Amino acid sequence: MKTLTAFDKNSFIKAVKLANKEIFDYINNQISFKDYQYSNTIGFGGDNSLNFDLTAENIFIKHLEKFGNIYSEECGFLDNNSEYTIVIDPLDGSNNFLNNLPYYGTSVALKKNEKVVAGFVTNLISSVLTYKIFEDDVKYFSLKDNLYVQSENFSKSNLAIFERAYKFPNICYKLNENKIKFRCLGAVALSLCDARNYDFVLFGGEHREFDIAAALYICEDFFTHKSNKFLLISKNKLKFEQVLEIIKEI
Amino acid sequence: MKTLTAFDKNSFIKAVKLANKEIFDYINNQISFKDYQYSNTIGFGGDNSLNFDLTAENIFIKHLEKFGNIYSEECGFLDNNSEYTIVIDPLDGSNNFLNNLPYYGTSVALKKNEKVVAGFVTNLISSVLTYKIFEDDVKYFSLKDNLYVQSENFSKSNLAIFERAYKFPNICYKLNENKIKFRCLGAVALSLCDARNYDFVLFGGEHREFDIAAALYICEDFFTHKSNKFLLISKNKLKFEQVLEIIKEI
Repeated sequence: MKTLTAFDKNSFIKAVKLANKEIFDYINNQISFKDYQYSNTIGFGGDNSLNFDLTAENIFIKHLEKFGNIYSEECGFLDNNSEYTIVIDPLDGSNNFLNNLPYYGTSVALKKNEKVVAGFVTNLISSVLTYKIFEDDVKYFSLKDNLYVQSENFSKSNLAIFERAYKFPNICYKLNENKIKFRCLGAVALSLCDARNYDFVLFGGEHREFDIAAALYICEDFFTHKSNKFLLISKNKLKFEQVLEIIKEI
Repeated sequence: MKTLTAFDKNSFIKAVKLANKEIFDYINNQISFKDYQYSNTIGFGGDNSLNFDLTAENIFIKHLEKFGNIYSEECGFLDNNSEYTIVIDPLDGSNNFLNNLPYYGTSVALKKNEKVVAGFVTNLISSVLTYKIFEDDVKYFSLKDNLYVQSENFSKSNLAIFERAYKFPNICYKLNENKIKFRCLGAVALSLCDARNYDFVLFGGEHREFDIAAALYICEDFFTHKSNKFLLISKNKLKFEQVLEIIKEI
């Protein structure tokens, strides 16, 4: 059990930025063949871990364990006897990473007792960290430049995200009938946390707390449907209801 | 008609890098609301152009027109009476750009008379420019650091790319039956030029020279099938034949 300091918001934000910056720099300078190998350990989340998963997790633990308990995809629950728990996906989009597909990142949620009170999602390619803490406004921060990124959003939503589309061809049919264009990107936290940009984000299949807790907190004002089979999130009520009908028929 | 200098390979590579660097810097420093507006002109490619499409195209023309004729998605053919023609897609993945989805780039092919002799594809998020010229080996260059990126590829292909999957639910069925996981990313030149990382890249629907000429040259050693309806590319003969069977049945 670690000795914990009293929880301080600004110190926590700084620590999450530092951890992500260390991972970002590692990827850009130190990455090697070994990182792409399987570690031959099955993580708590049930997947075979990459060595890089473990490297990234250790960086997070180093920076964040002084703030509370750790609950992470690879190591499971590390009890520091705190009212705070930090829920970590050290590599969101592992399979993209493994295939050199430039869309992957990290996800960190902070829980006080059982309630999520902060979410931090980082795109490790664009270097943008999106976060929201204690009901403050959502902020965007570039790890590359150490600068806040303008929060103004110029985008026009005319695109949807359908994660794991390949497992749900019936829904692909329905979306096509409704002339809905989608992307299937392979990093759930990243896609969910950018939901403001899109018509909707639909995630098919089981979801785990590591994957979604941070992003859902960032998008807590959006329309959200969560079942065993699907997670749907949208800022647009009409689109939300349209897709809800489609997935209910399946 | 411009006065052209004698074609020099290294000057041309340098000019393509400079043009992409200028676009990369523009996106990171100068982008504004106006860039996301439609220009109310229909480009030569038939799409309604964004102001940013035109900005990027003008940057390419400025740097490249001294090397030959220009054939670009927005402006069509600019005849400089040269045996060289530079085929440009100034913004591959326009719709991703418009939706703030961080996967878009540029594509530049060089033709001597009618034959493609070089291809340059840039991911404007990761800043990696992939290129091949005059049968040299493929090279990777980072616009951010002005450095060549290690060409060693640690990735393990266990993922396919299916661009425009949303228009072909029948194929989604077949791929699912064959337990093939895919991503649908929305920037064709980027996905094709990274085909070395994936089991295969499949692009459904019509393709235009702007979109594919550079990437196909970069992957010219790969198995390739091109019809009116599909473009399929893979380094893996078995996967290639498997998918060829699937798309032939449709």
